[in-house]
Amino acid sequence: MKVAVIGGGSSYTPELVNGFLARVETFPLDELWLVDISQERLIVVGGFAQRMVAAAGSPFSVHLTTDRRAGVAGASYVTTQLRVGGMEARRQDEYLGRRYGLVGQETTGIGGMAKALRTIPVLLGIAQDMAELAPGAPLVNFTNPAGLVTEALVRYAPEVPAVGVCNVSITTKMHLLERWAAMTGVTVAPERAQLDTLGLNHLTWHRGLTIDGEDVWPQIIAHYVAELRAAEEPEWSPHLVASLRMIPNYYLQYFYNTSHKIAEQAAWPPSRAEAVMAVEHDLLAYYGDPANSTPPADLMKRGGAYYSTLATQLLNAHYNDLDEVHVVNTPHQGAVPGIPADWVMELPCRVGRAGIDPLPAAPLHPAVAGLAAAVKAYELLTVEAAVHGDREAAYQALLANPIGPEMGQVDALLDELLTINRPYLPHFFDGQ
Amino acid sequence: MKVAVIGGGSSYTPELVNGFLARVETFPLDELWLVDISQERLIVVGGFAQRMVAAAGSPFSVHLTTDRRAGVAGASYVTTQLRVGGMEARRQDEYLGRRYGLVGQETTGIGGMAKALRTIPVLLGIAQDMAELAPGAPLVNFTNPAGLVTEALVRYAPEVPAVGVCNVSITTKMHLLERWAAMTGVTVAPERAQLDTLGLNHLTWHRGLTIDGEDVWPQIIAHYVAELRAAEEPEWSPHLVASLRMIPNYYLQYFYNTSHKIAEQAAWPPSRAEAVMAVEHDLLAYYGDPANSTPPADLMKRGGAYYSTLATQLLNAHYNDLDEVHVVNTPHQGAVPGIPADWVMELPCRVGRAGIDPLPAAPLHPAVAGLAAAVKAYELLTVEAAVHGDREAAYQALLANPIGPEMGQVDALLDELLTINRPYLPHFFDGQ
Amino acid sequence: MKVAVIGGGSSYTPELVNGFLARVETFPLDELWLVDISQERLIVVGGFAQRMVAAAGSPFSVHLTTDRRAGVAGASYVTTQLRVGGMEARRQDEYLGRRYGLVGQETTGIGGMAKALRTIPVLLGIAQDMAELAPGAPLVNFTNPAGLVTEALVRYAPEVPAVGVCNVSITTKMHLLERWAAMTGVTVAPERAQLDTLGLNHLTWHRGLTIDGEDVWPQIIAHYVAELRAAEEPEWSPHLVASLRMIPNYYLQYFYNTSHKIAEQAAWPPSRAEAVMAVEHDLLAYYGDPANSTPPADLMKRGGAYYSTLATQLLNAHYNDLDEVHVVNTPHQGAVPGIPADWVMELPCRVGRAGIDPLPAAPLHPAVAGLAAAVKAYELLTVEAAVHGDREAAYQALLANPIGPEMGQVDALLDELLTINRPYLPHFFDGQ
Amino acid sequence: MKVAVIGGGSSYTPELVNGFLARVETFPLDELWLVDISQERLIVVGGFAQRMVAAAGSPFSVHLTTDRRAGVAGASYVTTQLRVGGMEARRQDEYLGRRYGLVGQETTGIGGMAKALRTIPVLLGIAQDMAELAPGAPLVNFTNPAGLVTEALVRYAPEVPAVGVCNVSITTKMHLLERWAAMTGVTVAPERAQLDTLGLNHLTWHRGLTIDGEDVWPQIIAHYVAELRAAEEPEWSPHLVASLRMIPNYYLQYFYNTSHKIAEQAAWPPSRAEAVMAVEHDLLAYYGDPANSTPPADLMKRGGAYYSTLATQLLNAHYNDLDEVHVVNTPHQGAVPGIPADWVMELPCRVGRAGIDPLPAAPLHPAVAGLAAAVKAYELLTVEAAVHGDREAAYQALLANPIGPEMGQVDALLDELLTINRPYLPHFFDGQ
Repeated sequence: MKVAVIGGGSSYTPELVNGFLARVETFPLDELWLVDISQERLIVVGGFAQRMVAAAGSPFSVHLTTDRRAGVAGASYVTTQLRVGGMEARRQDEYLGRRYGLVGQETTGIGGMAKALRTIPVLLGIAQDMAELAPGAPLVNFTNPAGLVTEALVRYAPEVPAVGVCNVSITTKMHLLERWAAMTGVTVAPERAQLDTLGLNHLTWHRGLTIDGEDVWPQIIAHYVAELRAAEEPEWSPHLVASLRMIPNYYLQYFYNTSHKIAEQAAWPPSRAEAVMAVEHDLLAYYGDPANSTPPADLMKRGGAYYSTLATQLLNAHYNDLDEVHVVNTPHQGAVPGIPADWVMELPCRVGRAGIDPLPAAPLHPAVAGLAAAVKAYELLTVEAAVHGDREAAYQALLANPIGPEMGQVDALLDELLTINRPYLPHFFDGQ
Repeated sequence: MKVAVIGGGSSYTPELVNGFLARVETFPLDELWLVDISQERLIVVGGFAQRMVAAAGSPFSVHLTTDRRAGVAGASYVTTQLRVGGMEARRQDEYLGRRYGLVGQETTGIGGMAKALRTIPVLLGIAQDMAELAPGAPLVNFTNPAGLVTEALVRYAPEVPAVGVCNVSITTKMHLLERWAAMTGVTVAPERAQLDTLGLNHLTWHRGLTIDGEDVWPQIIAHYVAELRAAEEPEWSPHLVASLRMIPNYYLQYFYNTSHKIAEQAAWPPSRAEAVMAVEHDLLAYYGDPANSTPPADLMKRGGAYYSTLATQLLNAHYNDLDEVHVVNTPHQGAVPGIPADWVMELPCRVGRAGIDPLPAAPLHPAVAGLAAAVKAYELLTVEAAVHGDREAAYQALLANPIGPEMGQVDALLDELLTINRPYLPHFFDGQ
Repeated sequence: MKVAVIGGGSSYTPELVNGFLARVETFPLDELWLVDISQERLIVVGGFAQRMVAAAGSPFSVHLTTDRRAGVAGASYVTTQLRVGGMEARRQDEYLGRRYGLVGQETTGIGGMAKALRTIPVLLGIAQDMAELAPGAPLVNFTNPAGLVTEALVRYAPEVPAVGVCNVSITTKMHLLERWAAMTGVTVAPERAQLDTLGLNHLTWHRGLTIDGEDVWPQIIAHYVAELRAAEEPEWSPHLVASLRMIPNYYLQYFYNTSHKIAEQAAWPPSRAEAVMAVEHDLLAYYGDPANSTPPADLMKRGGAYYSTLATQLLNAHYNDLDEVHVVNTPHQGAVPGIPADWVMELPCRVGRAGIDPLPAAPLHPAVAGLAAAVKAYELLTVEAAVHGDREAAYQALLANPIGPEMGQVDALLDELLTINRPYLPHFFDGQ
Repeated sequence: MKVAVIGGGSSYTPELVNGFLARVETFPLDELWLVDISQERLIVVGGFAQRMVAAAGSPFSVHLTTDRRAGVAGASYVTTQLRVGGMEARRQDEYLGRRYGLVGQETTGIGGMAKALRTIPVLLGIAQDMAELAPGAPLVNFTNPAGLVTEALVRYAPEVPAVGVCNVSITTKMHLLERWAAMTGVTVAPERAQLDTLGLNHLTWHRGLTIDGEDVWPQIIAHYVAELRAAEEPEWSPHLVASLRMIPNYYLQYFYNTSHKIAEQAAWPPSRAEAVMAVEHDLLAYYGDPANSTPPADLMKRGGAYYSTLATQLLNAHYNDLDEVHVVNTPHQGAVPGIPADWVMELPCRVGRAGIDPLPAAPLHPAVAGLAAAVKAYELLTVEAAVHGDREAAYQALLANPIGPEMGQVDALLDELLTINRPYLPHFFDGQ
């Protein structure tokens, strides 16, 4: 069995490799192909991955390539963790937001849109490669904005079974189980618990937790609200959580606490991209040392907690037809009442050989349904813009984004955004 | 035939009386009952109305009363143009908004919510009176926020046929016909033209105009965009209109141009309420002078252009079963694809004896559907809050409102909003 | 000669007009200017006043204006009978009290404080206008809390000769003379009798009555105590009156019978404001009827008995330099032993062209001196709060008020009081 | 030198003895006379005192007597720490308050009044004895209500130099120095610090502290307010302290937090008297054990912290003409501006051979002056009632007391109070 990792030079790769090593009993991987456009990163990170696997007795082989089609060819699974334009493009998005008095962030607002415009054409290209060279293989996308990218994949590459993955829900579940342990003294294995979450990627609301099928949400919410009330600077307004009885995804800070997040930007540098650049700098130095063959602990600082767990669990569940429940981004197909069935939503789904089946879900809470609809409208317009290089769609997407620019800013902002990203936006500049 | 006007002491009343006088041939009104809680305004405005009707040869009688039930009893039609808390409450809403750095406006944002909370219980009380004392009579509501109030009426007083009316679409149609006349030299009578408009009240987008059934929208839009491009300070970004090919309702300024509208508030006083107070001051002086019996020209300054036309047209269309098309607020009943059928929308409807039937409509433009859904979410929560005095619903409505407060402001703002409006919010303070 | 009445749209105005008509022989009024911020009330009440004066042969002219400076300019006397925030603000004060389990009343407790905070800045503005446009003209203030307002005027507008007037002492004198007539069969003209009264406005104790200079108090007290003893529900504890040998001002019920007065509030509506609103409703209907030109008998129900008598007597005494004795609110200037000479007290004064001179008075009874001092402390702090928008002074005034909130309530009550009254408290919210 | 202690059987006596033992160097006491009406208590407590002095080498002799005149005769100083009616009378006062829904407390409200009525005649009797048998000797009164009793002594026994003493200010000073030590790490000896305090006994406000003459109040207040803000159930509203910049005497809880204190009474028994009875029970058992000759630590629990320090300091300062500053109750003689010079106030005074001289004091804060005046009015009436057995004065005192009964309760309450205390109120029942 072959797995291809597009963006294999990512600093996340060693953790992913660890995941495959840990599951080698049930997931009989033969070849791991790391694909990247950067040769240097392939050498540094890929070389480290190879030492890791060797140190573990070489249960599978690790191949490094900058030839994407070679990497994809014959793969049973393709995962994508690429970053078009690298960390520098992210940094630019951040400062672009700051210049306009808007949120400058990787996955939401205008930064998320810029990233989507850069990323979607590349992902569609990968899907095209897969349709040709690895037909039927699932595409597991980790590249942000993961929901928006999935929205593009399911609409414009329907022949490839694609799913969008994010570590927020698994991380939240782990944190809630830690909370539960602190509350009750009882440690619960993650597989005994199920998190009910719903929304769009990075715009989800966690709204339930069961342990062995039993609802523990009332206790969890009560405990969490009490903690917020006691906190000097609570992450969320206690009233908000108590009123909704849901825990917002962290990224909802950008919507519920907009001006505060914008105000924080005044303290840059370092922006988040700049901070991550510094971390990666050290990580790459470590990976590059031939003496090292075990991933460093501070990998977690990079923000990708449980990423490896999630990725390998998903592939494993699919391969072994486990029908496990995982939270992923996929068209909900009517599982959520009251919204169009083709919208990609992030929600618990049953994962097995037959595919990804959303579990029936309670409707979106009335207090958040409008925000989700507004962001989805922006997403759908962004997909159109990205796929067709459609400037009007991009204009309208900016206008539709709840944390986007006001009328008087849209034209200038759009011009600047497209100009900055011109190298990655071939469709917008076709024939120019 | 008896027509009852609740809020009959309004400075709009003389124009309405004019409308009835103008239609006396086809709309055989016998008794016009003006109902108001202010004895003084009834004396001043109602006395003027009586002189107007007397000067016209007394085709119908004008009755003044502070007893609402007496006014409603036996009425064939009831219209509502009341203002709970008077202009002072509006002024308070405006400054409340300003204090929080938010839009302070009569019908949108937190001001519209405050007005809805004050108004809905009163309107439901009127509907209850009507169900008892004037069964079957239509309730034609002009009180803002007209769509939100209609949303409450159709959900909580379904036995009363209620419709919400706003003069924006008729005014827009008149302006566009003036534009057409300027463009072509051809004057078109309003009844030959039909405006396609869709959205929520004060959140509509005008998206088509036909004259004698022929589509003149391309010419209209081109002309309008050219005018915007030529303007030094265009009301709308020309790109916005050109991109959407729709003309936004003026009130969308509060959503598309938020910070600009907020910045304008720094120049208060006078706020809009204060400006209207001054106009009303002069109007009342005029009405109160026993020598006067014809409405003054500057009534239009008050903001209610074509209000009388619209109101009397609607009653006339219903009474004479004309099946005319008018733009009103009503549940769209599936006329608009892709949104829940029970949402009250503002759209063209056929008006006749049998009732109000929405014409089939093209879906909301993708660039505005999200905003409409977000505002509708806020509206539905506001209805619940108003009807049940539900503080949590009010909290969530504020959170859901796209131009509402951020997380950190909601609690304080809600407290202040409820406290200021306490006299008009009995349900929120039951038992206190 | 010109007299300006600020708050001329008050339902009291017709009675005042009657007073001027009755005194036209000795008080040669030329122009009566009614000033009000409500155009409608000026039309209704002022129109009625004009008909009254016309029916009396037009001995003087009646002018109506919303322009206060025009009203004040050149006036020989200015009287104030305005109500900032109208009856609704009074109603709010009442229910605010009720919510906190406190007395909710127009002139005492927290309601009186709220009214003072609303009123004082307006009265100081009037005084400023007078200093400029009617220098030397006396300001006769009827607006409650009359003593507190006078305290502010004498401290912060010393250039305007201001006096505070209340109908309690004249009404009491008339009642006692009725009692005397019932006791003795002898009817005594009011000018032959003199009432000894002392305290703060609405916190006075009546403590003597002479007829033609002869002390009849022992008989009066004996008769009154006997009546109280015989009563099923006596207004005052017979022992209290017998012990103090003073008759308390009715408003002392709020201090001596606090919990009973609070308990009565449970039966609201109607509160007193609500009851007065209903009376005013009928009065205005009557005034607004062009057929009416004589004041109705039930004007007395409104609570302002002898108000007109008092007002016109005072002006007359001043104009004609009569040196009559009237009970008014003014700094006692040492007339009362044992208390600071600058405290405004309500006591008998000699009124003539030279001004208002307090008659020497016996000290406050030891059983009431403490209460008077406590209330005066609250008054002085309230003046500071009102004039400077000083929240701390307001806090301390609440704390100092003997029927104010307890420590644990002050903050919340103050917040609510200021928020509710925000439109009328510009100084408290300067720059917000 | 002889000192007489009236009420020498009090459980406080051993601490007082300790004080004399500690000061034996500077205060050359020869004879300590313990006077009590209870022989048993004299034996138990007095016997213990004798063992204490014997254990210390018998620097002075201890005499026990129930013959007050013998005790007083020839004394250089007389201190009074008696309790007319014993703890049971206090218990009755408490429950009397509770029955009427009023504060039932030893020194404030109706309990304080009952105690004053019982105590004042006895103290005046002692003063009479002293005038005869120990002329010129100062009377240092610790018996509560100490201020009220002093008020009676200075008015009705002016020939005896009397001063009223309370441990509140010294205890407060000690606490504030502990606070200072905690804040700064610097321990300050009490004699280096001076507390500015003003008011009536048990109705004082602490308003300044100097250390070596330097004002440290800003720091103290800031620290205290911060502590109150952090407390879950702060003793005082932080705003109150921050606003007044004064720390209220604990007993002001009964005025500022009345209903809360009354509510606590619902939990009785044990009332405070009952709790103290239990403590005294144990103390007396200890004193009565011949094996014991050192006071137990838990004496402090009894509530009289620093009582001995204060008493012996005062006598010492007087005897050695030290001109030390101590806070005592005495007529302020004009030291406090704006209030009658003969009012007994509690304030810092210079104590030397020549007598007690109040230091010039800043006026009472305007926010508390009214309350002080109201309570003083009650005190003055109570003195009259006590001295003359004047039922009307008692009636008026109850009426005047800010936490006394309302009008409708006064008669019944007074009857009950007098009846319960009849054994101790000979003047009220003279000839009956």
